[in-house]
Amino acid sequence: MINVILLGFGNVGHHLYKAMEASAGIAIVQIYNRSSIKDITIPQTQDLSKLAKADVYIIAVPDDSIATVSEELPMRNALVVHTSGGVSLNTLSEKNRRGIFYPLQTFSKNTDVPFNTIPICVEAEQEHDLELLESLGFLLSETVVEISSEERATLHLAAVFVNNFTNHLYQIAADITSEKNINFELLKPLVTETARKIESLPPSEVQTGPAKRKDQKTIEKHLKLLEGTPYRSIYQALTNSIQHGKKL
Amino acid sequence: MINVILLGFGNVGHHLYKAMEASAGIAIVQIYNRSSIKDITIPQTQDLSKLAKADVYIIAVPDDSIATVSEELPMRNALVVHTSGGVSLNTLSEKNRRGIFYPLQTFSKNTDVPFNTIPICVEAEQEHDLELLESLGFLLSETVVEISSEERATLHLAAVFVNNFTNHLYQIAADITSEKNINFELLKPLVTETARKIESLPPSEVQTGPAKRKDQKTIEKHLKLLEGTPYRSIYQALTNSIQHGKKL
Repeated sequence: MINVILLGFGNVGHHLYKAMEASAGIAIVQIYNRSSIKDITIPQTQDLSKLAKADVYIIAVPDDSIATVSEELPMRNALVVHTSGGVSLNTLSEKNRRGIFYPLQTFSKNTDVPFNTIPICVEAEQEHDLELLESLGFLLSETVVEISSEERATLHLAAVFVNNFTNHLYQIAADITSEKNINFELLKPLVTETARKIESLPPSEVQTGPAKRKDQKTIEKHLKLLEGTPYRSIYQALTNSIQHGKKL
Repeated sequence: MINVILLGFGNVGHHLYKAMEASAGIAIVQIYNRSSIKDITIPQTQDLSKLAKADVYIIAVPDDSIATVSEELPMRNALVVHTSGGVSLNTLSEKNRRGIFYPLQTFSKNTDVPFNTIPICVEAEQEHDLELLESLGFLLSETVVEISSEERATLHLAAVFVNNFTNHLYQIAADITSEKNINFELLKPLVTETARKIESLPPSEVQTGPAKRKDQKTIEKHLKLLEGTPYRSIYQALTNSIQHGKKL
C-alpha cells in the first residue's frame, strides 16, 4: 500500500484524487487545499503545518506556487513530487527528496478521461524514490516512463502544439464559420478523424491540403477570405512550414 | 432508386463508391476512371464518350481536372455534380445542370470512416436537382445540408485549419520529440482528448496553456527551446493569436 498526501485540488489534483481513490494499492492519507473541499471523506487540512506522514507528497498546485508550497512543507527528507510538465525538478525545495509525477493529459473539471490510458512521466533524484513513483504510476496507468526534466520540457512544448495550439486552430475554424452563420458542428467529424488518423500513421504521411499539394490558386483564395483578420498570418506561417518544413 | 455514374476513383471516389454500393437506394450504373480499377464488378469505362445514362453524374477527380472533365462530358442537360470543397459550382460546364455533392471529411485509401457520420454539403441550380441530391445524401449520411458555393469556400477554409494545419501541428510535435529521442506515442492520448473535448464545449471555453494564462516564463522557455527552428515563428504567431484574438 502506498500512502499519499495530495496537495492542491485543481483540475490535476481532482482527477488524481479520483484515480487514486479507485486504486486498491493507494491510500490517500490527507488532502491539503487552500479552501475546503466538499463531498470527500478523506481528512483535509488548509494548514501546511498540520500535514500527516506519507510515503509521497504530491504537489498539484499552479506552476507559480510549486516553489512556495514545497518551501513551506514542515517535514524534511520526505519524498515530495510535483505534477507539472513545465516546471523543473530543481524548483522543489532541497530540504526534501525531490521527484516528478507528471500525467501527460489535459484535464477539465467536468470531463472524465480514463486514467489508465494517460502516460505518467516520472523522475526522481534517488533510485528507490524512482521505483516508488513507478509503482505508484502503474497502479494508475498502463504507461509509466522515466523522463528527465530536460526531456519533460521538450514533451511539454510538444504538448502545447498538439493541445493548446490545436485547440486554437479549432477556435479559429469556429470563428470563421460562425462569422458566416455556418454551423461549426459540420466540422466535428473532420476534427475527430484528423486526430484518429495519426493513431496508426505518422502525421507526415497523412498530410494533405492545398499547402501540401502546392495548390497556389486555393491558397490565394483562402488568403483573400482571411484578409483583414489576424488569422491570415497564421495561415501563411503554417502553409510555409508545410511547404518548406525544416528548410525554412 | 437513384442511378449514379461515378467519375474518378481517387480517395473520395473510392469511399463514395463503397458507401453507395452499400446503400439499397443507390445503383452505380458505371464508373469512369483514367485507368482500369481492379476488384469491382460495376461496368467501367476509360472513355468519356462511352458514358451511359444516369440520374446524376458525380465528378470526383482532382480539383484541377474538374473543369476539363465536365467540359468533355458527351451529354447535355444532365445533372452533373462535383465533390470538391474548394471549387465553385461555376467551374462545371454550363452545358449540363450543375450541382455540388461535397462530403466534408478527409479520406485515405486504407482507412474507413463511417460514411453515415459525414456531413454532405449539397448545392444545385435547380430546385428538383437539389431535392435529388438531398435524397442521395440521406441515403448515405445522417447529415445533409444545403450550402452555397460561397459558404462552402468558408467551410473549406475552416477545414484546412482543423485538418491540414492541425495535422501539421502534430507533425511539429512529432519532430520536436523525435529530435530528442522521446517517443511521440506519449502524446497520442492528449491528441485524442484535445479533439474529444470540443464535442461538447466550444473551443474557446476549453483553451488552456501558457499563452492563455499569460505565463511569460514558460513561453520564453519554449521560445528558447525552439531557437534556430522554423517552428519558433509558428509558436509566436499562435501564442499572439491566443492572447489577442481578433484584436490583433
